[in-house]
Amino acid sequence: MKNNQFAIVPTDSEAAIAELTKIHFITDDMTALKTVPAVYQALLSKSFPEVHSAAGLKHKFANIMATSQLTLADWLTTATVVNNQVFYNVGLQLLGFLPGHDFDLADPLLAMRDIQLPMVSDSAFDREALYYAWYLLLNTRGVKGQTLIELLTTRGYFVPFYQLPNDQKPLFFNGKAQAVFNTNDLIRDVVYVEAPLDTDADGQRDLLKVEILRPAETETGLKVPVLYTASPYNQGIDDVAGKATMHNVDVPLTAKTPDEKTYADVEAQPKATSLPAARPVNATTKHAEESFGREQSYTLNDYFLARGFAVVYAAGIGSVDSDGLAPTGDEDETTSTIAIIEWLTGKRPAFTNRDADTAIDAWWTNGAVAMTGRSYLGTLATAAATTGVAGLKTIISEAAISSWYDYYRDNGLVVAPDTFQGEDTDVLAAEVFSRSLKAGDAHRIQGKFDQKLAALTTGQDRDTGSYNQFWDERNYLKNVDKIKADIVMVHGLNDWNVKPRNVAHLWDKLQDVPVTKKLILHQGQHIYINNLQSLDFTDMMNMWLSHELYGLKNHAEDLLPNVLVQDNTTAQTWHAHDNWWQDADQALDFKVQYKELVPADHPVDQRAAHFTDKLPDKLFAHYQRHLDDWQADLLREDKTGPLYDHRLLFKSWQAPADQLLVGQPHLSGSVAVNQNFGMLSFMLIDFGKAQRLTVSPQMIASKALDLGYHWREDDLKDFKLAPASNYKMITKGHLNLQNRHNPWHNEALHANEFYDFNVDLQPLFHHLLAGHQIGLVIYATDMKMTVRGNQDLQYSLQLNKLALHIPMKPFKA
Amino acid sequence: MKNNQFAIVPTDSEAAIAELTKIHFITDDMTALKTVPAVYQALLSKSFPEVHSAAGLKHKFANIMATSQLTLADWLTTATVVNNQVFYNVGLQLLGFLPGHDFDLADPLLAMRDIQLPMVSDSAFDREALYYAWYLLLNTRGVKGQTLIELLTTRGYFVPFYQLPNDQKPLFFNGKAQAVFNTNDLIRDVVYVEAPLDTDADGQRDLLKVEILRPAETETGLKVPVLYTASPYNQGIDDVAGKATMHNVDVPLTAKTPDEKTYADVEAQPKATSLPAARPVNATTKHAEESFGREQSYTLNDYFLARGFAVVYAAGIGSVDSDGLAPTGDEDETTSTIAIIEWLTGKRPAFTNRDADTAIDAWWTNGAVAMTGRSYLGTLATAAATTGVAGLKTIISEAAISSWYDYYRDNGLVVAPDTFQGEDTDVLAAEVFSRSLKAGDAHRIQGKFDQKLAALTTGQDRDTGSYNQFWDERNYLKNVDKIKADIVMVHGLNDWNVKPRNVAHLWDKLQDVPVTKKLILHQGQHIYINNLQSLDFTDMMNMWLSHELYGLKNHAEDLLPNVLVQDNTTAQTWHAHDNWWQDADQALDFKVQYKELVPADHPVDQRAAHFTDKLPDKLFAHYQRHLDDWQADLLREDKTGPLYDHRLLFKSWQAPADQLLVGQPHLSGSVAVNQNFGMLSFMLIDFGKAQRLTVSPQMIASKALDLGYHWREDDLKDFKLAPASNYKMITKGHLNLQNRHNPWHNEALHANEFYDFNVDLQPLFHHLLAGHQIGLVIYATDMKMTVRGNQDLQYSLQLNKLALHIPMKPFKA
Repeated sequence: MKNNQFAIVPTDSEAAIAELTKIHFITDDMTALKTVPAVYQALLSKSFPEVHSAAGLKHKFANIMATSQLTLADWLTTATVVNNQVFYNVGLQLLGFLPGHDFDLADPLLAMRDIQLPMVSDSAFDREALYYAWYLLLNTRGVKGQTLIELLTTRGYFVPFYQLPNDQKPLFFNGKAQAVFNTNDLIRDVVYVEAPLDTDADGQRDLLKVEILRPAETETGLKVPVLYTASPYNQGIDDVAGKATMHNVDVPLTAKTPDEKTYADVEAQPKATSLPAARPVNATTKHAEESFGREQSYTLNDYFLARGFAVVYAAGIGSVDSDGLAPTGDEDETTSTIAIIEWLTGKRPAFTNRDADTAIDAWWTNGAVAMTGRSYLGTLATAAATTGVAGLKTIISEAAISSWYDYYRDNGLVVAPDTFQGEDTDVLAAEVFSRSLKAGDAHRIQGKFDQKLAALTTGQDRDTGSYNQFWDERNYLKNVDKIKADIVMVHGLNDWNVKPRNVAHLWDKLQDVPVTKKLILHQGQHIYINNLQSLDFTDMMNMWLSHELYGLKNHAEDLLPNVLVQDNTTAQTWHAHDNWWQDADQALDFKVQYKELVPADHPVDQRAAHFTDKLPDKLFAHYQRHLDDWQADLLREDKTGPLYDHRLLFKSWQAPADQLLVGQPHLSGSVAVNQNFGMLSFMLIDFGKAQRLTVSPQMIASKALDLGYHWREDDLKDFKLAPASNYKMITKGHLNLQNRHNPWHNEALHANEFYDFNVDLQPLFHHLLAGHQIGLVIYATDMKMTVRGNQDLQYSLQLNKLALHIPMKPFKA
Repeated sequence: MKNNQFAIVPTDSEAAIAELTKIHFITDDMTALKTVPAVYQALLSKSFPEVHSAAGLKHKFANIMATSQLTLADWLTTATVVNNQVFYNVGLQLLGFLPGHDFDLADPLLAMRDIQLPMVSDSAFDREALYYAWYLLLNTRGVKGQTLIELLTTRGYFVPFYQLPNDQKPLFFNGKAQAVFNTNDLIRDVVYVEAPLDTDADGQRDLLKVEILRPAETETGLKVPVLYTASPYNQGIDDVAGKATMHNVDVPLTAKTPDEKTYADVEAQPKATSLPAARPVNATTKHAEESFGREQSYTLNDYFLARGFAVVYAAGIGSVDSDGLAPTGDEDETTSTIAIIEWLTGKRPAFTNRDADTAIDAWWTNGAVAMTGRSYLGTLATAAATTGVAGLKTIISEAAISSWYDYYRDNGLVVAPDTFQGEDTDVLAAEVFSRSLKAGDAHRIQGKFDQKLAALTTGQDRDTGSYNQFWDERNYLKNVDKIKADIVMVHGLNDWNVKPRNVAHLWDKLQDVPVTKKLILHQGQHIYINNLQSLDFTDMMNMWLSHELYGLKNHAEDLLPNVLVQDNTTAQTWHAHDNWWQDADQALDFKVQYKELVPADHPVDQRAAHFTDKLPDKLFAHYQRHLDDWQADLLREDKTGPLYDHRLLFKSWQAPADQLLVGQPHLSGSVAVNQNFGMLSFMLIDFGKAQRLTVSPQMIASKALDLGYHWREDDLKDFKLAPASNYKMITKGHLNLQNRHNPWHNEALHANEFYDFNVDLQPLFHHLLAGHQIGLVIYATDMKMTVRGNQDLQYSLQLNKLALHIPMKPFKA
């Protein structure tokens, strides 16, 4: 294990002692203790909250080695000083590390360094130094990715703190809220928020079902902040309807009628809708009338439920027990999303039931809201943030869409999210329109929703793939300047579902917006990262939300790195950076010579290169069913490969040193095709035999992460190095040859004429090892993402015009 | 979905009404209701425990369709009668089935039949018939594999029942204990049981750590039974030590010295050990001194924790916080296992801590114990049962070993459990000896354990693979006649880890033992089956344990089928049988003619057939790393297959009708080998293109099975049909040619001389479809299981002597 810990708040000795006193590790009776070992024993005795007798403790001490020869029990009987060898021998064992396997009792400091655990440098401790070392040890992460104080939490340490008076809650330790709230006593309420919308046109404002979990302490006056997750999936998914709506992608690409459109022609226009009056509020109550069983939860939220935060789930318009129609990303959806925040901040009514005769306030919250969640959930958090809605202090958006065009389209082409070929806004709407799962409700609303679905199908316009008003309405990037919430963004560099461009554009646009923003780029696909062994993400988010929602001055805004990136060449390695590509002042510039990518100042090839897109029927049919075979064949370098003549492949020389490829690679060139339509696809490849990380974290221990005490659990996972491979695809891009300048402007394309093109590929943060080579693949049909008509299209590229530009920083270990 | 429900207790109308009254579905105020629809509405109103207002209920009713045109809310306003159409339309929706997808509102009865849901035949209900239909519906399983009463449980129905006085607990409904115990209030104790053992020879009897979870009601006098899971894995696993102990299997088979041993020579002898005196009991208490955080739990136990059962986990000798040495299956392990039961039944002391100065009784139990668990856990349950220990009322042994020789050996050969090549008793002992994970304890004990490990290595005798006293001590089958506990056995017909012979031998030996025994054979590997959509296993176990441990007269002993078998040809299909092969009076008898299996009365081949075991080095090396490739190649029928000359393959004609192959196929023949040692391996194959079940259940819905109310969860899974395949391996067998008669008797083998052999293959319960063919494969080295010396061994078989006998029953759908 390698520890990467960013959420330790630097604390001076005096403050550390005060904090240890606050959490009862230092107690009055300890002043009477005469020796440092006696104080140490007192601290250790409090580290077994499950043991309530001296005899029991003695046995636990006997289970631990203090030196190579003495158990802690034996050592304590004779010790006169506490040195750092004993302290860290014992400390490592308390953290779950095993002598002989994970470290050597003769040299624990070596392991502390190797595992990257924080430690104090004193070799022998006086009382104050011991306290300080103990404080740091409590904040040090163990073999299961939890700090010692968290491990003690999961064993009941904070149970006596459940009884603290409200004015001592929440309880912060080292800048992070602790689990002093009894999750057995959580209160679960359902309310119905009235949104300023009537998306189902029934003459009544849409009511939105909200599920609330809040600490019992709110009943006696504690005001708590809210983690709000807007999840259209939360009340169920209509898989059958989603599948029925899925589009056939085995259709031909067709020519688009050339136009002269500018952005003004596709800019979304305000919709003139008449909004029914708000319901009158004739009665109010503090008590909900409805509760719920098992909510669809999210483990990061569960963790905070034990620590003094409420959690709120809403599935929005079109979901079970709510009104409205699922719209996939339009402005109504954003309005629906922030209506919940407006209720939480006292600006909008909610009712106890759908008859809406009794209103209910969010009287139990301090009005500070964070939004959390991944994918569609994070997308709605982003959408909400771009409204600047008051009360939304921060969002933690994971794998979020920032523009729906960047999710379902690319440069004038239909380009599917990976593994969801044929999906589109209508498919997603059909899937999350969970009102269809309640037959009584569906009976009333299905007709209206079918109309909505037809409108989505029309609006999304798969025929052209061009950017239009429909997509412009679904582009949150236009409103980034309105953002007032601080932001943590998390994205996978191997996320080909929500592609990295989504986070890159948002990050770039945020550069000038006066909010605090943090970016975490991991090597995963479309995943959560709150259960990794190597990174203290959950602690970081605790520090962040304690700061953002409780106003704790823990310096989270400075302590968290601006850009934290998981290295792709070694396991469990994370590097802090000042920025992504915005501070890069170097670049790799390539042109081509025969099949090589060569430095731009070298002589270039004056010939044209050709490839044909059409495949033999049988091969094409095989690839339809075996997409990974297609990609493997596409990248085969031998001439016998079945796709050798169906793509161009250029390889660079070996990198002379480690390099960080950052930001959006840019490619320009000149292409001709034998029809009046066509497309190009691109990949960049890292060639070089190496062990590479698995794109999904692997299970280390099932249910090993307790999120509180006798509360919910998460699996402990991490990325591991897979067996050596010869290459890895590191980015992709797509271009409709009729959209050479803008996705909204369809240009003429005459058969067999050469046209210049420019394209930005999906952004990178890639550590290219010395000796590795960069590969550029140019092809047309992308079996995994584009339409697949298997048409007789022949492409030619003028090689002397091909130019590849990749922003770059030198790698510093 | 297809429902297979065996745990409904037939109940007459009067009793049903009494039970509905007991669980408050029928209440006094309902006598005033004048119409059947009004009564129906009252029942429905109690079916939304999360809703506490009339308005809220009205909306829930509006979500449900009563007829093709009317919602339940609308229908209730005008209804004068309740007919079965409306009742089952609503009922299906309450169970989670979706109109339009899962059933047609115009004909719900069709779906009830198709899904195999129980229903009443009345077409219109009077009040009594309605109550009866409602009762049955509450006991009917829904789309997520839970009955309606369970679904209501997960939504809080039984929360008001938490407050019932102890004399009304547990609460049974339809013969099954209900979740009226608040799992938030569970009490968690640790005690240390003193076993009548001193396996670590320290002059003190071994103390064994026990973790107890019991309902809070025990504190106020309720006596509850115990589900006891003995799990050597429970306190942690020393993976590193296990791996270090793993044996190299790429070693040659060697000749054994011929002997004249009989069983008397290998029969285990009583060990003369001097047992230290029991510790004196000077003080006693009712209160434990130690508790615990998150125990390693088992979802079936978790389910029962909400229903009035205590759960006890013990990891036994050699585990963390216990004394002793891990012995893998010997008599001491059995003694250690039942010591816990002896404590639970008042016959043996436990102490509050390891100083053992204060004793503590299991004062909270009624003394009725069941053992549960899979694999090693189920093995120890079997071991305990064969002692006849008092208080052990029943065991539910899943995928359990009945003789360790049948786990690690076969007919004089070392034969590994699938996916654990190189494992043996010493490896397993090293792995579960978790005392090594506590460095202080390991410091004291590791030397003694290393001696123990060496003794295991010697005793298991991998050099010969023969049966000896070591294995005889580990053969529970010898003591089956002592069993007093009723038994439920669960085993996977595709379990090549704990092979089916283990359960088959136990089942067969139990035939004459006067206990109730039930057998469930599923199509899985080494898995649990308590989370399947298609089978009410958990309900069956509830009915069983309510009967066995609370003495409830629910007729579980008659209602559960004797032998319940999952069909291998279709999904979600389970058939009840009277017995396994014990009632089969038919058989398939084959001899061979060229490459065919022919009926035994046909002319047979008079030639010999030959194959060589040795493979080209490169191919052998490939198979070492790719075991599935080896098996696929072994079964290739084309002559170009790389193993074509390395095995013999005989195929039968097509089966004229569906057949059930049951029990142990028997093969006899005559073989010669070019050395003075040799082995044969065998497979039977079901040839025929068909979709076959996945051998692991597939995820249907993550965490969908709530085990109580706001309690732990399990994933919902089931086996699905995989894409069509051409064949499936259905059983295997192995034979050392020097153990032609007994695994303890090593016989002479002269090179190139023919010897008769007889061998039982692993038992079957296989549905062979009409038109399919049986294949017999004869080979030598089994890359997945035997030693793999890649030796130059040539085998010849006299084809006229080959005879295959497979017990058979006709298939009745």
